[in-house]
Amino acid sequence: MSGSTCAFCAIVHGDVAASVVLEDEHTMAFLDRRPLFRGHALVVPRVHCATLADLPGDLLRPLFASAQIVARAMEDALGAEGTFVAINNRVSQSVPHLHIHIVPRRSGDGLKGFFWPRQRYADEQEIEAMADRLRAAISRLSPG
Amino acid sequence: MSGSTCAFCAIVHGDVAASVVLEDEHTMAFLDRRPLFRGHALVVPRVHCATLADLPGDLLRPLFASAQIVARAMEDALGAEGTFVAINNRVSQSVPHLHIHIVPRRSGDGLKGFFWPRQRYADEQEIEAMADRLRAAISRLSPG
Repeated sequence: MSGSTCAFCAIVHGDVAASVVLEDEHTMAFLDRRPLFRGHALVVPRVHCATLADLPGDLLRPLFASAQIVARAMEDALGAEGTFVAINNRVSQSVPHLHIHIVPRRSGDGLKGFFWPRQRYADEQEIEAMADRLRAAISRLSPG
Repeated sequence: MSGSTCAFCAIVHGDVAASVVLEDEHTMAFLDRRPLFRGHALVVPRVHCATLADLPGDLLRPLFASAQIVARAMEDALGAEGTFVAINNRVSQSVPHLHIHIVPRRSGDGLKGFFWPRQRYADEQEIEAMADRLRAAISRLSPG
């Protein structure tokens, strides 16, 4: 997707208005207009990039440093007791430009119960077989 | 919390077994034993650190580079169509040692419907008032 058709590139380039809360050389943060809780912000790299896995390594630090600042600001300015930081990569990803959701949280805000419908592995063999599959892929994909 | 009482420090130090899938100088990744979906992994810094906001800046790149590798491995090895990457900071955080959940996703896996119960801002004034509060805090908290 080119910058000219990406909704978040349009915000980065100033072609579409947004409630911007942070801007620096490599990143921008603005409010999500349909918040999980009010104050919910999105942190994006200025460069177009689809998913976390696609982000050039030298942009990891600036992007997540901005996420740290926004998370701290939610505790400082909104009285949040904590934050939920999340990235949907491809599945459930509404805009195909990497964005980090930063959501202010409070105890008892109602998110926890339905949030982590956990499963169980049948036994140790099943969990080890799964680990083996990931280890094999990671050893192929790791640098060096 | 000291390393001696932290469940994830115990894994990092080799005192408690885990299904480790990645280890490097600064990070470790292992399977969550109660997965959202099978293959769900946790990426942690070796150093004890409570939340994302507490992580020293020079560890952001290595931590999220490991998250990138694990996310790629899920697509490569598990046939995931995408990933959900999430951090609970304080609220809903089960172990107070920063951990990045990396969860393999597939279209129609059932997570989307209940996952983002979105709200709406009443009007433009409400969203701008919220942005003002965050901008003020960010300007106090930003370096330089």
